[in-house]
Amino acid sequence: MSIAIPKGFRLAVASAGFKKPGRKDLALAVSDVPAASAGVFTKNLFLAAPVVVGKDILGRKTTARAVLINTGQANACTGDKGMDNCRTTMALVGAAAKLDPDDILPASTGVIGAQLKMPLWEQAAPIVAANLGTALIEDFAEAIMTTDAFPKYADEALELGGGRVLLAGVAKGAGMICPNMATMLSMVLCDAAVDPEDWRTMFRRAVEVTFNRATVDGDTSTNDALYGLANGASGVRAASKDLEVLEAALTRVLADLAYKLVQDGEGATKVLHISVAGAASEHDANVAARAVGHSPLVKTAMYGKDANWGRIIGALGRAGVAFNPGHVDVALCGVLLFKSGQPTDLDFDALLKEPLEQRDLYIDISLGAGPRKYTLLASDFTPEYIAINANYRS
Amino acid sequence: MSIAIPKGFRLAVASAGFKKPGRKDLALAVSDVPAASAGVFTKNLFLAAPVVVGKDILGRKTTARAVLINTGQANACTGDKGMDNCRTTMALVGAAAKLDPDDILPASTGVIGAQLKMPLWEQAAPIVAANLGTALIEDFAEAIMTTDAFPKYADEALELGGGRVLLAGVAKGAGMICPNMATMLSMVLCDAAVDPEDWRTMFRRAVEVTFNRATVDGDTSTNDALYGLANGASGVRAASKDLEVLEAALTRVLADLAYKLVQDGEGATKVLHISVAGAASEHDANVAARAVGHSPLVKTAMYGKDANWGRIIGALGRAGVAFNPGHVDVALCGVLLFKSGQPTDLDFDALLKEPLEQRDLYIDISLGAGPRKYTLLASDFTPEYIAINANYRS
Repeated sequence: MSIAIPKGFRLAVASAGFKKPGRKDLALAVSDVPAASAGVFTKNLFLAAPVVVGKDILGRKTTARAVLINTGQANACTGDKGMDNCRTTMALVGAAAKLDPDDILPASTGVIGAQLKMPLWEQAAPIVAANLGTALIEDFAEAIMTTDAFPKYADEALELGGGRVLLAGVAKGAGMICPNMATMLSMVLCDAAVDPEDWRTMFRRAVEVTFNRATVDGDTSTNDALYGLANGASGVRAASKDLEVLEAALTRVLADLAYKLVQDGEGATKVLHISVAGAASEHDANVAARAVGHSPLVKTAMYGKDANWGRIIGALGRAGVAFNPGHVDVALCGVLLFKSGQPTDLDFDALLKEPLEQRDLYIDISLGAGPRKYTLLASDFTPEYIAINANYRS
Repeated sequence: MSIAIPKGFRLAVASAGFKKPGRKDLALAVSDVPAASAGVFTKNLFLAAPVVVGKDILGRKTTARAVLINTGQANACTGDKGMDNCRTTMALVGAAAKLDPDDILPASTGVIGAQLKMPLWEQAAPIVAANLGTALIEDFAEAIMTTDAFPKYADEALELGGGRVLLAGVAKGAGMICPNMATMLSMVLCDAAVDPEDWRTMFRRAVEVTFNRATVDGDTSTNDALYGLANGASGVRAASKDLEVLEAALTRVLADLAYKLVQDGEGATKVLHISVAGAASEHDANVAARAVGHSPLVKTAMYGKDANWGRIIGALGRAGVAFNPGHVDVALCGVLLFKSGQPTDLDFDALLKEPLEQRDLYIDISLGAGPRKYTLLASDFTPEYIAINANYRS
């Protein structure tokens, strides 16, 4: 059974030829009426053209009508020409779909530095507009994939005081994943009526505890963008007392998508749940968790199902975070390996043989330096990651 | 022709069985007389037992007689038992070689968390002592290898005011390489007479511009240690006016060893020379260079001989360093790809086809934010890196 599309939204996909011939590579979502808009973007200093344009629109307007996403070319590091091209694509699709270009939130993914293929856009704009209403959430998620192994979507139906509303989200991303204030491309549609300020606030908070705590390779993209549209077509208004419920549902949707990004990390076979507790500050816990989650040695050991826990300790010790090594505990999949700075005498290879076969691996660290904690999702490193990235453009 | 051993030093290697049977895994260097001693160690918070012991000796004494290195077990994260074992190995070898254990500088490399195999040490101590004088620099370098593909050594002969002296150095390391104030294991022998304070000062400075600017995987080891012994057996004293020449030679020896560490980065096929200029501070240039040099996406593209320069820009933009993207220039192997924040219109794929076949690849970045610069050596990421590290303990 397919995911329900929130009321008042129509979706379309098309094969524009940006990537391989016949591959769906263009996606458009349109709300019948102006929808409260939210956007969260990359903190990379080199902002892709669609990120610059999307931020500009969100800064000037509290509502939008559409989200437009292409794959194949990221339109990042493309200079002034890239900015012009981005605006032209919005004008082309706006004319074909009878939308004000300023109501379209753009996003692009693909090769950095490559310019958009404008002749193909001219051909594709009327086609994607004509297709509106024919695509499912699943089709949309598939059309925005790059090196993704599977499409990523998540939904929630929830009862607010005024009635039932739907939330549906999609995301793409497998490499260059280390979201900082946003993720790779993602879009969430909702048919509740929500005050734009409330809608944007809950996105900022939900992203902080979901996408921003997921990493594949530590490389924050130039194109990370998350858009949210809430159009009110359900006839249900999110009242003040409903906001907490809606934010919780939104957070679950984003957490589900973030998990899927890591699960589908390029070539990944494992999802590492890295928890650092007992830190002096949340910043320290964050830095320590990332030192472990980005360590190529930890990531390859987990791929190899090797309980080589010394690599976790090694990464912690070079994290640049202050703690007393004699107070540190480390457990892997529930087996305590290192206690108060000393190795435990457990037969860890035997105890961990079975747990390391699982997809979800739990690394629990306590620094013994304070009350703060942080949890990060990370993928492992496999030969497939190298193969995908050594030949990405060919 | 083999490298000349500086006068007054005798070397030995032995097969203790710490690793595979028959593999040389124990190395001892002894000076006939007390030698000015220097040591530079890892900044990882989890110090291996031999690092703790070596630092202690160097803190109490300005001279030493010997360096003792084993592979197979790193004796790191081994708690109190690891400390006792380290001191016992020094006592065993000291008794066999007629050395005060306090004159022996210890180092270990291998699996973190594994305890030393003490019965094997009892058997091996008299053997390695009996072998003194039979090993070459090359044999010593080979006996300290772990995942290294080739032994690493370098030497210099130089004329000081008082006559000719020799410097010879060895190093090991291929993975867990991101030296911070030191490298993996390394040892330098010199037969000049040098004031210990001068000798230590020149080590600190030489390490800063050599080992500390080389990285394989960003993982700083728990065992990094560099020892230097200068015994005066040449009969030549390094006078004040000689110190500059001696430091320059030492720096060349360490730079040669650092290059070889990166060249032999686990599975590496490329040496990336990453230069960041135009930074507001050396710290900024350092951070930016490391963001590029540690980026799995840059490292895999370079392995794939793919001029995917957008990944260099992406890594720069997320480095956390302040600059104006519109002032940034990037060149790869001399081809200017990005100028003042705009892509150049060169046919870079054609221009870079030949250069990307070479082992040494040059990434030159200018941030346009100030006068400071930094250069880093980094390796690429290959399927072999994953294969080596997924199965390291088996």
